[in-house]
Amino acid sequence: MKELEKLFDRIIQRTTINLRELGYNVKPSVWSLIPPGQMTKFYAFYGITPDHPLNFQFRHSGLAGSYFLGRCHVTNSLLYKSDIRGDELKKKGELFRFQEFEIQVSKDEEILIEDSALIKTLVHNFSHDPETLEKFFIKDTVSTHYANIHGSPSDGCFLGPFSTVDLTTIRDCVIGTFSYIQAGEISHLNIEPGTIWVRSPGNFNFLYRYPGEQLKKYIYFAPGDQPQGIFMDFVNDRKEDFQEIFEVVNFESSVSVPGSASLDRYAVTKPTTHISENVLVSQRAYLQNVWLGKGANAQENCYIINSRLEGYNVTAHGAKIIEADLGKNVFVGFNSFLQGRPDCRLSIGKESIIMPHTIIDIQEPLSIPAGHLVWGLVTNQKDLEENSLPVNKFSEIETRFSKGNLVFEGSGRSFVKAFQDRIHHILEANGAFFNGAENKGHAQRNQNISFNTIQPYPRGSLKGLYPTIVIQP
Amino acid sequence: MKELEKLFDRIIQRTTINLRELGYNVKPSVWSLIPPGQMTKFYAFYGITPDHPLNFQFRHSGLAGSYFLGRCHVTNSLLYKSDIRGDELKKKGELFRFQEFEIQVSKDEEILIEDSALIKTLVHNFSHDPETLEKFFIKDTVSTHYANIHGSPSDGCFLGPFSTVDLTTIRDCVIGTFSYIQAGEISHLNIEPGTIWVRSPGNFNFLYRYPGEQLKKYIYFAPGDQPQGIFMDFVNDRKEDFQEIFEVVNFESSVSVPGSASLDRYAVTKPTTHISENVLVSQRAYLQNVWLGKGANAQENCYIINSRLEGYNVTAHGAKIIEADLGKNVFVGFNSFLQGRPDCRLSIGKESIIMPHTIIDIQEPLSIPAGHLVWGLVTNQKDLEENSLPVNKFSEIETRFSKGNLVFEGSGRSFVKAFQDRIHHILEANGAFFNGAENKGHAQRNQNISFNTIQPYPRGSLKGLYPTIVIQP
Repeated sequence: MKELEKLFDRIIQRTTINLRELGYNVKPSVWSLIPPGQMTKFYAFYGITPDHPLNFQFRHSGLAGSYFLGRCHVTNSLLYKSDIRGDELKKKGELFRFQEFEIQVSKDEEILIEDSALIKTLVHNFSHDPETLEKFFIKDTVSTHYANIHGSPSDGCFLGPFSTVDLTTIRDCVIGTFSYIQAGEISHLNIEPGTIWVRSPGNFNFLYRYPGEQLKKYIYFAPGDQPQGIFMDFVNDRKEDFQEIFEVVNFESSVSVPGSASLDRYAVTKPTTHISENVLVSQRAYLQNVWLGKGANAQENCYIINSRLEGYNVTAHGAKIIEADLGKNVFVGFNSFLQGRPDCRLSIGKESIIMPHTIIDIQEPLSIPAGHLVWGLVTNQKDLEENSLPVNKFSEIETRFSKGNLVFEGSGRSFVKAFQDRIHHILEANGAFFNGAENKGHAQRNQNISFNTIQPYPRGSLKGLYPTIVIQP
Repeated sequence: MKELEKLFDRIIQRTTINLRELGYNVKPSVWSLIPPGQMTKFYAFYGITPDHPLNFQFRHSGLAGSYFLGRCHVTNSLLYKSDIRGDELKKKGELFRFQEFEIQVSKDEEILIEDSALIKTLVHNFSHDPETLEKFFIKDTVSTHYANIHGSPSDGCFLGPFSTVDLTTIRDCVIGTFSYIQAGEISHLNIEPGTIWVRSPGNFNFLYRYPGEQLKKYIYFAPGDQPQGIFMDFVNDRKEDFQEIFEVVNFESSVSVPGSASLDRYAVTKPTTHISENVLVSQRAYLQNVWLGKGANAQENCYIINSRLEGYNVTAHGAKIIEADLGKNVFVGFNSFLQGRPDCRLSIGKESIIMPHTIIDIQEPLSIPAGHLVWGLVTNQKDLEENSLPVNKFSEIETRFSKGNLVFEGSGRSFVKAFQDRIHHILEANGAFFNGAENKGHAQRNQNISFNTIQPYPRGSLKGLYPTIVIQP
């Protein structure tokens, strides 16, 4: 166990050095978040298919409970129950368009994680940094519970619980609890908790700040403690349902799955789950009494309970949808928490966009009309009016718009178009438009993955650390 | 699946070329023994501990259901439900004594399996060939159901079902069904089924031949068919009991295990199993209503049912003991089949040696006195008198001895001493003499192994083949 603790200490030290300008001391925040005993308790695993490029290299790392797909090197790192998804890696020779540039990818992209500690973090591949198209690097970084690193190379950062960095390169930054950042390249910033920031330099800037006291009820993180609040209670209450899935080697769900859809064997499905064609249910997704229409997807760490989604719905990583009815093409962004109740359901009209990190928590029925953009904290009709706008109205913004805690600058049209293009790309990549022959995506390619388990040294000074493991074609 | 079949075809061709002088065509014998569908059905697995040296390299092979411990390279091979045990590998710098030579081991020993097909074969490490102390090679070899390759480098051979090669280097040989060979270096021999041959050049030569027609009832193998007979029925009847053990990631047995003993999590234990101190129960051992005294061991593929073993008993790989009572220090060799019945139990007095590949199958009670050496086929008291001798009487043989189907030449004393030394070494290596501090063996070192599973490509032309997998410290 000794070497494992030394490694954690070293990672913390390196990250703290990177954050010295911000004066952020990483150790008190994370030292208690990985109890060393847990690092021997859970197996890690990787997926093998003929459809995903293969090159795993794990060296001198602790990987408890983590999952890997695609090409990925992990060196001197601790990954605890993290999902590293390399199923959209760029291939050598492909063209990457950035502004007026067309850049040729010089070799197959790989995910490199070095001197990092990731705790229940989701990493989704595809580096969006035009400087490092071939390497998606996460270096000297500590990332905590249910954070998402999505297309975002990082370097020397600390990510708080339920934070998301998306399509962004961040260097020496602290990303506060439940903050969502999609802002191009940023460095040396300390982002406060509950910041929703979407920026495209020269085009637009969207900035929302959660009311601090209200956010704490949902998620609060103080150095030395575990994260606390409704979000943590919600996921912890459902932890045990995952146990039976991880305890068996081959798990056979009783749910009927069309040939064009895929249900990951590490997803939880409770009665009664209905899966239509072209649906993708990713691992660690949680479905209970859910109807999923054609082309819907339920991504990693999402929870959908007592709800009906009509089709072509995106439920992004970590989003939660409870007691709700969603029309076609409704998008629900990362880590959003949409809580209807049995006696007051939430309904969302078709083609609405629920921004990442939105909280809707209602005590009386709420109906969001079709084609609306919604953000921030919504607990009733009044909040909804303050924190939403019809998408076509938003498109009309030309210079500046301010409402409640939101400040928007730049072109509403660009902003809406960027979002809509992205949603279309997500559906496409996930196989929602598969016609039996063309437009294959994850729903079709992720069927029938071979899962291999790995475990650390069980005893001795290396207890909890994994030997060097190299897997290649 | 295509590549898997090509590989099997290629291995068969290479082995057939090696056996051209003997005119042995391997293909009809084995082509139907590995149904390709089975090669994707079972996961392979390897063990990691701080006590065993680590260097696994699997390249372009099919490994369904196989287990690996220690240092082992498998290249262009098919291993189906085989156990490759590398827990007695020699270490660099150790001294190996052979006749008057003292040879220094020049590097850590490794098991190398190349261009081979092993079907339900047990491989036990420690090359006894003084020419290749560092490499235990199994090359261009096909080995079938429940064969044992024990300390025996091989090169271009075919091993029939339930055969054993022990401490022997064999080149371009065919080893018949249920034959046991421990004979120094042999080449270009075609060993008939049911041959028990123990030779130490210059010292002794022990040769027993099973009566052919009677052996067929127990085990019979004809090209184009699966092996048949009582042995196959016996193991097939108990196959399902292993399923629940392989289906779960971590199997917790309810059997109480002393701190100095080990019960492999891949062993079957049915009510009521008693395990005393210093006991070793290896994987794929099968125990049902068994009392195991201090220092007893139950090795891979052995079955012990409704029996009591008083202590310091060796039950070697593949041995079966049913409805029997064994005194202290009774040794039961490889693949022996000792079948008492509820109404006519078998009892074996202390310090008796049941030679490898002995069949005792009785219809009335039989009692083997203490200190006896037993071989061949024994179905009643009369057979016993023909196929046994008190150990001290055997030691008195000086030139030649013949009885029933046995011919012995040379020194009985050397023969008995070689066996007794070996039994002592086996008990020692297995940890039977552990005193709480010294004399650690497998029973103590094999506790708490991390098991990692691996699976092949699930689809496509590589279906059933494994990617390259390298595991190092």
